[in-house]
Amino acid sequence: MVDVFVHGAAQVRFGRTPERSIETMGQQAVIAALGDAGIDKADIDEVCCGNVLGGMLVGQRILRDLGMTGIAISNVENACSSGSSALREGYWAIRSGRAETVLVIGVEKMSVLGGGTLPLEVTDIEVAQGQVMPAVYAARARRYMAETGATVDDLGRVAVKARLNGSRNPYAHFQEPVSFETIMAGRMVADPLRLNMCCPTSDGAAAVVLSGRKPAYAGTPVRLAGTALKSGKYRTAPHDVTTGSLTKDTSRIAYEAAGIDPRDIGLCELHDAFAPAEIMYYEALGLCGRGEGASLLRNGDTAIDGRIPVNPGGGLLARGHALGATGVAQFAEAFDQMRRRAGARQVDRDVKVAVTHCTGGGISGVDHGACAVTVLVR
Amino acid sequence: MVDVFVHGAAQVRFGRTPERSIETMGQQAVIAALGDAGIDKADIDEVCCGNVLGGMLVGQRILRDLGMTGIAISNVENACSSGSSALREGYWAIRSGRAETVLVIGVEKMSVLGGGTLPLEVTDIEVAQGQVMPAVYAARARRYMAETGATVDDLGRVAVKARLNGSRNPYAHFQEPVSFETIMAGRMVADPLRLNMCCPTSDGAAAVVLSGRKPAYAGTPVRLAGTALKSGKYRTAPHDVTTGSLTKDTSRIAYEAAGIDPRDIGLCELHDAFAPAEIMYYEALGLCGRGEGASLLRNGDTAIDGRIPVNPGGGLLARGHALGATGVAQFAEAFDQMRRRAGARQVDRDVKVAVTHCTGGGISGVDHGACAVTVLVR
Repeated sequence: MVDVFVHGAAQVRFGRTPERSIETMGQQAVIAALGDAGIDKADIDEVCCGNVLGGMLVGQRILRDLGMTGIAISNVENACSSGSSALREGYWAIRSGRAETVLVIGVEKMSVLGGGTLPLEVTDIEVAQGQVMPAVYAARARRYMAETGATVDDLGRVAVKARLNGSRNPYAHFQEPVSFETIMAGRMVADPLRLNMCCPTSDGAAAVVLSGRKPAYAGTPVRLAGTALKSGKYRTAPHDVTTGSLTKDTSRIAYEAAGIDPRDIGLCELHDAFAPAEIMYYEALGLCGRGEGASLLRNGDTAIDGRIPVNPGGGLLARGHALGATGVAQFAEAFDQMRRRAGARQVDRDVKVAVTHCTGGGISGVDHGACAVTVLVR
Repeated sequence: MVDVFVHGAAQVRFGRTPERSIETMGQQAVIAALGDAGIDKADIDEVCCGNVLGGMLVGQRILRDLGMTGIAISNVENACSSGSSALREGYWAIRSGRAETVLVIGVEKMSVLGGGTLPLEVTDIEVAQGQVMPAVYAARARRYMAETGATVDDLGRVAVKARLNGSRNPYAHFQEPVSFETIMAGRMVADPLRLNMCCPTSDGAAAVVLSGRKPAYAGTPVRLAGTALKSGKYRTAPHDVTTGSLTKDTSRIAYEAAGIDPRDIGLCELHDAFAPAEIMYYEALGLCGRGEGASLLRNGDTAIDGRIPVNPGGGLLARGHALGATGVAQFAEAFDQMRRRAGARQVDRDVKVAVTHCTGGGISGVDHGACAVTVLVR
């Protein structure tokens, strides 16, 4: 089967901006991604758009005024993993020979349309009883700390790193660094999670151009070398809520598809919707062993100048979380880093393998509605 | 690439039933389709779910209580073509070798969640000014009648046929035949469209099992031989609103993929959201030539006992229209007819080639947000 090359990528600034429409944000990302790829809009064979809350035909509404309809457009919804799921569809459209060049869009406007974790009809008894996302992650954090010796200070350290990285990222929702002391004095959202340990709800968009043709840019091309998507098991029997088993399983499928080993990973954009998630997903993604997550963070291994930079763009905690946009923005960030054009937030190391990870929706402690992982190889 | 065989299919009764949840309807369809296929739930590799209005993770919410999560589940939104788009994803998951056996679900609950044609933020000036679907089809009907000699009586004949077929279909929303006189005396919705010339908004679900393996049932297996998806061009310049150009273009891609000619078609489930659509889409799908649609209908060629039965299940006008469910229900209907197990609504002829067609969303007279066509071959 054909290789899938990354030709171009772009993000718009994330933020709480009710004045920007979904269409405006999406169009801005699409125009920038096409320009980056140096690909004419007429060469796009197919479009996959990840979105959750925007209503009907979001991709079509974005592309209509760009004169880019008349081709196959699909809208994909998988909660927080919607953008990553759209990337997977784009990957397979090329792998299967259905299309040569595909545009993937992720977009969300949460300032007006979002804010809750409830579907329109609540049929989930756990959610109805208060097990919304901050509560789920707070409980997981407590258990994880008890088992591993990680501390509330470590949660603060995650937030400090995120906000420092975000302060160097012109696309981030939050662009001011925040001190450890300020974070630890922040308003309690769900004990032990304070305000800056929880991601904001953001508006934003990103777009990526993938193709079976080799890209024109100089240097070794970046490939989307593998993807994986998996839903959780929604287990109700007592189970370990601290190991991120869905993330572990999904990432291993993606790694195998890409032909990589976790030790090859040089950069990671992971789903830090809440600070404890970052530490737990270090382990689940295989960046370190069980119980070693806090050490990895404290050692500075995951800092921008560390051994395995994690969330150099600020992650969900600082770039922000715009559901359907997030996975595509993570991918654009990884691509920028691998191309060494990430400006003030450029990582030190030469990255040959990068991983992006989204997981979201659903409850039940660990298992989520959809986890999606992509592997970029240069 | 591997052939894609249809192993089983099922519909639930369509109707206005606020007491049925999306999960309940979806589960009923899934259980019935798996039973029909004789396939264990553990053999499903992947799931594609078409839905528009149900909120986040509809597929996961349906499958959770069936113990069927833990695999890749994607939710696809493409307005009225959501179910057909999900069928296309399932087809390609098998064709590409990503999965061997795929479950496709279509589901919608319009009685509680639906009812409008407006996205949550109205950015479409034509819709805001009243160009909602009945108005669009009314204008197209007037122009089509002026150009071809079709009459308002022909629109009534479409509705009579639909309601007669629906009266034989235990899954139909409307199961009573309605006389021509009653239809022509009905309440005017958008001149010349009277009440029974417009589809109802329905709740419903359907599911289909596809696999690269040959099915166990006796006789020649039914294949999903080709699919196509295309968005419209959203043209604003003056253009012909009577030829269904998007349907024409999309169907020809599907026919070519399946290796068929329009003259091979033995049965068709088409998108009769409004009575004039049926006549115009006869032409667009190639069942007859330009301006011959009304004759085809008057001759009885598209009746259940005709040469090319169209909408033997009652179509959107009688089975009802439950956005994301419709395309999958059309497919289940075509499968039942080809297997000669459609009971009182079984067509007379031995059907070797059947086509299903959905097109919806968007405005601008003719072009729609998404058109999807599937071709079944036995």
